[in-house]
This record gives sequence, C-alpha cells and structure tokens, in this order.
Amino acid sequence: MSSGEFKPLDEKFLVEYIKATPSLYQVLGNNLHDLQIKEVGDGNLNFVFIVQTSSGSLVIKQALPYIRCIGESWPMTKERAYFEASALEEQGRLCPNHVPEVYHFDRSMSLIGMRYLEPPHIILRKGLIAGIEYPFLAEHISEFMAKTLFSTSLLSLTTTEHKSAVAKYCGNVEMCRLTEQVVFSDPYKVSQYNHWTSPYLDKDADAVREDNFLKLEVAELKSKFCERAQALIHGDLHTGSVMVTHDSTQVIDPEFAFYGPMGFDIGAFLANLILAYFSQDGHADDRNDRKTYKEWILKTTADTWSLFDKKFTALWDGHKNRSGDAYLPEIYNNAELQRIIKHKFMQELLHDSLGFGAAKMIRRIVGVAHVEDFESINDAARRADCERLALNFAKMLLKERRRFQTITEVVLAIQKSHS
Amino acid sequence: MSSGEFKPLDEKFLVEYIKATPSLYQVLGNNLHDLQIKEVGDGNLNFVFIVQTSSGSLVIKQALPYIRCIGESWPMTKERAYFEASALEEQGRLCPNHVPEVYHFDRSMSLIGMRYLEPPHIILRKGLIAGIEYPFLAEHISEFMAKTLFSTSLLSLTTTEHKSAVAKYCGNVEMCRLTEQVVFSDPYKVSQYNHWTSPYLDKDADAVREDNFLKLEVAELKSKFCERAQALIHGDLHTGSVMVTHDSTQVIDPEFAFYGPMGFDIGAFLANLILAYFSQDGHADDRNDRKTYKEWILKTTADTWSLFDKKFTALWDGHKNRSGDAYLPEIYNNAELQRIIKHKFMQELLHDSLGFGAAKMIRRIVGVAHVEDFESINDAARRADCERLALNFAKMLLKERRRFQTITEVVLAIQKSHS
Repeated sequence: MSSGEFKPLDEKFLVEYIKATPSLYQVLGNNLHDLQIKEVGDGNLNFVFIVQTSSGSLVIKQALPYIRCIGESWPMTKERAYFEASALEEQGRLCPNHVPEVYHFDRSMSLIGMRYLEPPHIILRKGLIAGIEYPFLAEHISEFMAKTLFSTSLLSLTTTEHKSAVAKYCGNVEMCRLTEQVVFSDPYKVSQYNHWTSPYLDKDADAVREDNFLKLEVAELKSKFCERAQALIHGDLHTGSVMVTHDSTQVIDPEFAFYGPMGFDIGAFLANLILAYFSQDGHADDRNDRKTYKEWILKTTADTWSLFDKKFTALWDGHKNRSGDAYLPEIYNNAELQRIIKHKFMQELLHDSLGFGAAKMIRRIVGVAHVEDFESINDAARRADCERLALNFAKMLLKERRRFQTITEVVLAIQKSHS
Repeated sequence: MSSGEFKPLDEKFLVEYIKATPSLYQVLGNNLHDLQIKEVGDGNLNFVFIVQTSSGSLVIKQALPYIRCIGESWPMTKERAYFEASALEEQGRLCPNHVPEVYHFDRSMSLIGMRYLEPPHIILRKGLIAGIEYPFLAEHISEFMAKTLFSTSLLSLTTTEHKSAVAKYCGNVEMCRLTEQVVFSDPYKVSQYNHWTSPYLDKDADAVREDNFLKLEVAELKSKFCERAQALIHGDLHTGSVMVTHDSTQVIDPEFAFYGPMGFDIGAFLANLILAYFSQDGHADDRNDRKTYKEWILKTTADTWSLFDKKFTALWDGHKNRSGDAYLPEIYNNAELQRIIKHKFMQELLHDSLGFGAAKMIRRIVGVAHVEDFESINDAARRADCERLALNFAKMLLKERRRFQTITEVVLAIQKSHS
C-alpha cells in the first residue's frame, strides 16, 4: 500500500497500512488480533513503532521532514529514508549477520518496515555506560566494516558499477551537508549550536577555535569527506548506531550513507569507543572502579582495527582473480608488490581513520551533539575533567596521526594521556 | 530539428538539418546559396564538418558509437557528445575567451554545432612540431585552467551544487574507463594495444612493466583519478586539444570531462609541452638547431604553472566573502592560516600535476596512443633516443614528484636530464 503521498503515521493509520501491505502483514502472521504497537522514537527525527503480534514482530520507521536539535527545528529531507533503506539493503546483502532485514520500503511515505531487534538488544552506547563487556563486538563490527567497505570499493567493483553507485548516493547531499556542518565546521567557529561543559571547558573550546594547525588538518579531512568516493559508508557509525546483546551485533540507522572515505566509518566507531573509555572515570564508584572495564574497552578498540585489517586483507586476497578495477592482477603481478600495495593502503586507511575519529571526538565535546557517555555524568566538574582528557587526546591524534604505525601505539598513547 | 533518433550524418542530410535548425541556420545568415561543406574529421571517433557561407561559418561535430584505434574498433557510447557539449557550455561560461561557442546541441543525434575556429588556427601540437612560438599561450591556458578548475570546485561551489554536478558527470563513465585503461593500466602490463619504437625501446618498455615502485605510484594516481571528485576537468587537455594562432588560444574536445582531480588537466598540458621539448632534437636540422625553441618551451612550461598558481590564488582571494563550502571564512579567519592553507593546497596540486603529467608522458611512449611530436621523427633510432630521455625523465618525476617544491626545480631537472 502506498498513497503516493507523504502522511505522518499515527497508530490507526499504521494498522490500516500494515493490513494493506502483504510484505508486512505476513511477518505478523497475517493476523492482527493480538496486535501491540509502541512508539519508541524520540520524535525528533523519525517515528519508530514496534509492532508485535503473537506470531511475529517488526519495526516501522518513518523519516520526518525535519530534525529537531536543542529546541531548534532544521528542515531535513525525508528522502534520507530512501538512502537509509538502500544502504540497509546493500549492507544486509553484504553482511546479513549484522544488519537487520528490511521487509518493506515505501519511498513516498519515507517508511521502512524492518526486523524488530528484540530484547535483550540494547543500544551499544548504553551498554558501554553500564560497563557491560561484549566479547564478540570487535569481531562482529570489524566484519561489518570489512565486508561493506571492501565490497563497495573499487577493490571489488568495476568503474562502471562504482560510478553508478556514487551518482545515486550524491542524492543524499543534505545529510552530507549536515555532517560537514556539525563535524568539520561548527566546532571550529563561533556557532549558536555549539555547547560544552561551561565554565570548565570555556578556554578549551576557545582554544579549538584558535588553533590554526588543527584547522589545517580538519580542512584536509573535510576535503576527503566531500571529494573522495572510496566506498559506500554508513556515515554515522557511532556506538548509538549499533544494537547489541552478548552475542549479537546489529548496525542500524545508515541514513547518512553515501560514497565517502572508508576511514570515516572506522574512525567513528573507534572514536566512540575511545570517548566511552575517557568517560569511565566519571562512572566509577565505590562498587566498581571501572579499571577492568577500561582495559576491555582499549582491547576492543585495538581488536576492532586489527580484526578489520585482517578481514579486509583476507577479502582482498580472496579477490585475486576476480578483482575490482583498482588493482588489476596483470599489473600487480608479484607477491612483493602485492604486499607493499596492501601495506600502504592499510597505513593510509589507519591514518584516515584516526583523523576522522579524532574530529568526531572533538565535535562531541565542543559541538552541537554530545554523547550520553559524558552527558550522564551528573557532576559537571568531574564530567569536564573526563572531557578535557578526551579533547586533548583527540587534538593530539588529529595533528599527529601520521606518526602512528599500529593501533597498539594508539592504545599506548591513550593510556599515557590518562595516567 | 531532431528526429529523436541517431542517424550518421552525410552532406545531404546535414544541409536539411541546418535548414531545419534556426540556431544553426541563423549563424550562416539564414541563406545556404553559397554553402561549402568540408568533412575534416579523421572518421575514427567523430564526423567533423566545416560549414561555410559568405555570411558565416560553423562546425558540426557528431560523435560515432565507436572509436577506432590501430585498426581495432572499440564500441564507445555516443553519449560522450552530451558530456562534451555540457562541458563546452560550462567552460565557455567560465572562460569565454578560450572556449569556442556552442550554437546547438542535439542529444539524440550526438551532434554539436559550434564556432568554426577559422584559419590561421591550427592544432597547438602541430605548431610545436613546426617550432612556432606562441607568446600568449601560457597566459591563456593558465587562465582557462584557473577559471574552469576553481569555479567548479568546492572553493567556489556549495556542497549541494558540487554533488549534483558530480552525479551528472558520473554518467561519462565509459570515457573514464578508457582513460583508466590507456593511461593507468595498459603501459604497466602486456597489452595487445601497446607499442613503442622497437627494437630500440624493447628493454625500456619491459622495465616499465617490471618496476614495482612505479606501479605503486601509478596505483595512487589511478585511485585519485577514480575517486577524487575535485573539479570539472577537461579530461584530455593535451596539446592536440588546443587550437592556436599567434594571439588566440581555444580549448576544444572536452569529451572526457568529468569530476576528477585538477592535477589531471594541469599535468596533461605540462606533460605534453615536456614531450614536445624532448622531441625537438629529432626535428633539429642544419637550418634550425631548435635550441632557442627548446628554451621557449621550457619557459612556457614554467610560466603555465606559475601563472596558473597566480590566477587560481587570485580567484581564491577574490572569493573571500562569497566562498564555496571548502573553507568557510568564519573558520579560516586569519591571514596566517589563509596563507598556510593556500600554500599546502598549491603544493599538493603541483605534486598531483607532476604525477599525472609523468603518467601521461609514459603512456605516450609505451602505450597505445602516441604523439605526433615523436611519431613525425622518421629516423627510428633518433626518435628512440628522444623518447628514452623523455621516458626516463617521466619515470623519475612520477617517483620523486614530492621532492619538487617549485616548477623551476622541475625545469632544471628537465635540462639536467637532457644534458
């Protein structure tokens, strides 16, 4: 069913819609007699309804034509739902274990029907704040990143496939503009949207806006973000876009997806783990000093990159005879050359990831949208201490990222910054 | 007039077509009684008709659905005429003094009606072979490059404008594929299309195919070519795509246009001047040792970059308060930072230009399509000597481009390689 026109959902209309849409009705057992509906979206960006019967369940997500942020309403194309659905389907095809299934998409309604990630799934960020270890997290998220990034790059695609996909996702430009503003611009200038733990971080925020060298590095990253169509990236791969249980890891909400630099996704995930790390001292109490948990976060940070490196390289090796257009086997025809090429590629990708990750840390401390990891520390002075350590580490990382050869060196630097 | 269907032109049909097309008929004074038509295309890629009456003249160019190269016919979308017409119109808007006016475009016929570049206009490459100096060449071509590259980049455009243009030119993928093959792939592998001055350069061609370090650098450039949508580039800006008189410089044939790295255009032009330089000893004779001319070519090479640098930077300075989305004035808000940003940008652009230029030199010596500068040297041994010097210089430049800080250093290296 599709009216051909956008109409915001309410429960009554939702029931009619599901009845008229076989791909949804079927998931619920073609029977709505014990139907339960719960609206769980925050209403700022999207409606999100959990729909359950005794025979099945699903989630209905509808994009609204604006986003609301600290009281301000920004118009925002609901066409983002089209790119979110497209990315979910593409990423689900490439990595079905870690992406919820899409049952239905209605472009005119900006409506996605998808798998309900049932309890005990929770948002990873909340798990990190609660101090819960996820033993398979690095394994799973590195698999998601390796499969989706490799398979949508010129390491796997032909130029024809790549340019066609690039053109399609150029349409998601409003989401790219939003990222440009909140990640690469606002933190480095006076903006009504910026905020920070004041007065504690007033001077720190000033310093970010007055740091020429930092701005030089941010400009380089922004140019890569805007110009380099390296792979289909999720575009917002922080710990709030991942749902987890002990043994399940599901990546959701790719509404910022477009063809951009791989390091933007990898960096986003690593950065949000590192933010979680720096927030832990704010959550420590008499019962739990969080020391063991901090070690687990650092191990997971290191493992995420190391496993990504391993899995990505394995995909590349496996593609030797059916490669994409980037490295033709007739040219890259000896083991030594293949080794050098891969090493150079992975080094650059690590540096990109550290750069983008650092920029994402900075914007979460002095920009518009903060992270619950810090926000949930009630004592402002204590929160500011955690944030300042994170901010200083991020500034160093952004400026000096090229001197890190391995993720282990990064982890050592985190520990050192903190001791 | 448009039949809505493609039909290869012949003289009879062309006359009918012009009569039925006011924008063309008008240029000829709405009267065909003293009409003269001359087909001047080589028939390998396009039909090109010069159409003249006593009241006016024009050129009709029609793309054919294939290209022919050393006897082989490659299918090639005639849609390239659409991108050529689009680029001519865009570049003509930005730099009307150096781009021929488009009177008419018919997409279904792949037909462009445009200004006839009347005698004494000749192809620049032929002028360089003849040893003719063009005192305004560097001034003009640098103006073309500065205006077209600056104005289609994020230094001038918003992200919204940029992504929309990128998406459009993704459609010219078949031409990008052709460039990838002939510039970045074929010279570095065994290919039926490659040829060189055999047997003299047999070992040199082998060495190119066995040089791991060279392949590593070529891979980096290819990745930039495929992934980096920096500006609307001409895509084939060699000396055969420029028509000149003593005081006119006209850039034609942008059928390879797409959003790619600026250095690909700049490098193409510089490289073809340098190829012309290395070919001069093959054209020297008792009457003219070409020494003065070689100095002029080197001066023009240096001036082209220096004037480009100056003009491009001036456009950037002039845009201070109405800039594109790359460097927001509120962030890049002090003179020192602006100076550093520009210096870094221009250094990277020089290195890109030298890299792409070097790759273009190599492919003209051991790849499929050679340049008349060398091909017109009848004595094969003498030709091979010239080509080897050029090839060795290009290999060095590709590998060591990052150590050159100024174009003067490059010119000195050319002179040194040759002495």
